[in-house]
Amino acid sequence: MKQNHSIEEIAKQLMAARSVILFPHIQMDGDALGSCAALCKALRCAGKEAVILTEDEVPEYLSFLDQGYCTMDSEAIHQPDVCMCVDCGEVVRFPKREKKFFQGKITICLDHHTTSTPFADYNFIDGSIAATAELVYKVIKAMGIPIDKEIGEAIFTGISTDTGNFQYSNATKESHLITADLYDAGIDHAKVAVQLYQNTRLEKIRITNRILDTLELFGGGKAAIAYVSQEMLRQVGAELSETEGVVETVRNVKGVEIGAFVKEQDGGRIKVSMRAKTTGNVAEIAAKFGGGGHVKAAGCTLYTNLQEACESVKEAIEESLKIKD
Amino acid sequence: MKQNHSIEEIAKQLMAARSVILFPHIQMDGDALGSCAALCKALRCAGKEAVILTEDEVPEYLSFLDQGYCTMDSEAIHQPDVCMCVDCGEVVRFPKREKKFFQGKITICLDHHTTSTPFADYNFIDGSIAATAELVYKVIKAMGIPIDKEIGEAIFTGISTDTGNFQYSNATKESHLITADLYDAGIDHAKVAVQLYQNTRLEKIRITNRILDTLELFGGGKAAIAYVSQEMLRQVGAELSETEGVVETVRNVKGVEIGAFVKEQDGGRIKVSMRAKTTGNVAEIAAKFGGGGHVKAAGCTLYTNLQEACESVKEAIEESLKIKD
Repeated sequence: MKQNHSIEEIAKQLMAARSVILFPHIQMDGDALGSCAALCKALRCAGKEAVILTEDEVPEYLSFLDQGYCTMDSEAIHQPDVCMCVDCGEVVRFPKREKKFFQGKITICLDHHTTSTPFADYNFIDGSIAATAELVYKVIKAMGIPIDKEIGEAIFTGISTDTGNFQYSNATKESHLITADLYDAGIDHAKVAVQLYQNTRLEKIRITNRILDTLELFGGGKAAIAYVSQEMLRQVGAELSETEGVVETVRNVKGVEIGAFVKEQDGGRIKVSMRAKTTGNVAEIAAKFGGGGHVKAAGCTLYTNLQEACESVKEAIEESLKIKD
Repeated sequence: MKQNHSIEEIAKQLMAARSVILFPHIQMDGDALGSCAALCKALRCAGKEAVILTEDEVPEYLSFLDQGYCTMDSEAIHQPDVCMCVDCGEVVRFPKREKKFFQGKITICLDHHTTSTPFADYNFIDGSIAATAELVYKVIKAMGIPIDKEIGEAIFTGISTDTGNFQYSNATKESHLITADLYDAGIDHAKVAVQLYQNTRLEKIRITNRILDTLELFGGGKAAIAYVSQEMLRQVGAELSETEGVVETVRNVKGVEIGAFVKEQDGGRIKVSMRAKTTGNVAEIAAKFGGGGHVKAAGCTLYTNLQEACESVKEAIEESLKIKD
C-alpha cells in the first residue's frame, strides 16, 4: 500500500477489471452518490459489470441519479475484481460493508476529505479538491470513456452540492472549468437543480418554521441560537434529517458571528451544530464539550436536557465571543 | 442609431471618452450594480472620470460594491461624454434620470433583457446571455484594462446573483468559463457570498416564517399559495421587499407544480407572483388578470382585498391545472 497514487494508475486498474463494486459513504449526499453514479455508468459503458453497494436507502432528492445502479445486496457481484470507496476515506464510513469491501481482489479509495488516510491498495486522496466528483471526472477522462449527459449530470450534482452551488470557499477555478466542460456533454443543469432543490416536503417547511420561531439573539446580537425537540418533530411529522440547513440560516442573520442549532435526539442526547461567519472559532467551542470539526463548522453532543444544553451552549459562545473582543 | 453594435465598438467609444456616467436600473440588483461597479472601476483605472448615477439607495447587501462610485447627484459630472445604461434596456427603468441620460454626447446601452429595444446611439443587447456582467467582462477585456480583484468580484456578483448561483436555466458554459477566469484575478468568491447571503435581517426571517405559516396546498397538492398582509409586515417590522424569494419556496414544495404568493400592497392593491416548476404556464394565468411574464415566472395586480385575491388566484390556478390534466 502506497500513500497516494495517480489518477492514471487508478484509471488503469479500473480498465483492467471486469467487475467493480462502488462504495459511497453512509448517509450518502450529492457528491457521494453523484460520483458513484457517474463511475458506474462509465464502467458499464466500457462493458464492465458494475454496481453501487449501499447500506442505506437512496434519499429521494437524489433518486434521479440511481438508474438501476444501487443495490443493498452485497452478493450482487460475488467476487469483484475491484472494490472502490468513493468520497469516503475511512472504513467507519461504510461499517456494514467493510467485509465485502476487502473481498475485492484490488481495493481503491478516491476521496477529497482531509481526514482520510490511505487504507486501500490504490488511494487517491486530495483534500484541496472541492468535490470527489471532480476526481471522478478526471478518472473517467483518463479511462478514455466519453462523458455523456447522464454522467455529466451526476458529476454536476456532486460539484454543485459539495460547493454550495459554487459559493463555499472550497470552490475553485477548476470546479468551474470542469462544469463548463460538462455543458459540452449536454447536461441540463436546471433540471438537476429542480430535482435537488425543488422537492421540499411540506413537513420540512413546517419544521423549519417552528425551529426559526425559537430563534434568539444573544451576546449583544453577535450570536444566535435555535432548537428543535422530539415533540416538535412529532407534531409536524418531520424527520430530524429535514432540519439540515437550519444552522446556516441561524448564522446568516445580520450581525451574527456565531450561530448554534440544538437538536434533541431520539433517546435523550442533544446534538449541537455551530457555524461561524468570519472571525469566530466554533471548533474551539465544540471542543469544550468533547466535540470537534472545523473553525467555521463544528458540532458536539451533550448528555442533558434541551433547556440545559441551550444554556450551556449560549454560555460557551458568549465566553468565546468575549475573548475575541 | 443602429439595431445592435459590437462589444468592440462599445469598448472603443468608452476608451475615447473622458467622462462616463453609468445608469443601473431602478431597484438595482446584483447584476445591475455589479456590472456598473466593474465598469466604473475599470474606467477610473483607465484615467477617466466615472460615476454611477442612481435614483434609489444602494441595498445594504450590495453596499460592498460601492467603493465611492454611486451618487444621486445628477450634476456629479456636468457634461458627460458618455451616458451608458447597464442591465437596463428601457427608459422606464431609469425614469428620474432619463433627462440626464440623453445629455450624454454619446449614449450606450448594454443589456441582456430580451424585452429591450435599442434606443441609445450604441446598443449591445443579447438576451441569450445569463448576466449583463458577462457582457461587462467582455467590454473591459476589449478595452484592454486588466481585471483586478475588485472588478472580478463585482462581475462575479452579477453572474452568480442573476443565475441563482449557476442553477437557473440561463446559466451557460460561458458563465462558468468567465467565472473561472475571474479566479485568476484573485476573487474571494466566498467573501462575496457572505456579503450577499449571510446578512439576513432578523425581520426577514420573522416575516418569512409568518408567511410560510399561511402556506396552503390545493388543487390536489399540485398547487400552493401563501400571502402577506400589511398588518403582518407591521407586526414584524419587515419591508415588503424582504419577502423576495418566498414564491420560490412556495413552488419548491414537493408535488407542487404552481406556487403563488399574494402580497397586499400599501394602498390596497394586491400583487401576485407565480412560479411554475416544469409543465405549468403561469404567464397564461397572470394574463387572465391583465398581468404577464414568462411561462415559469409571472405576476399580476388585483384591485380587491387580500382574501378575495387569494380565492380568485386559487380558482384560476385550479382551472389551469385541470386543462393540463
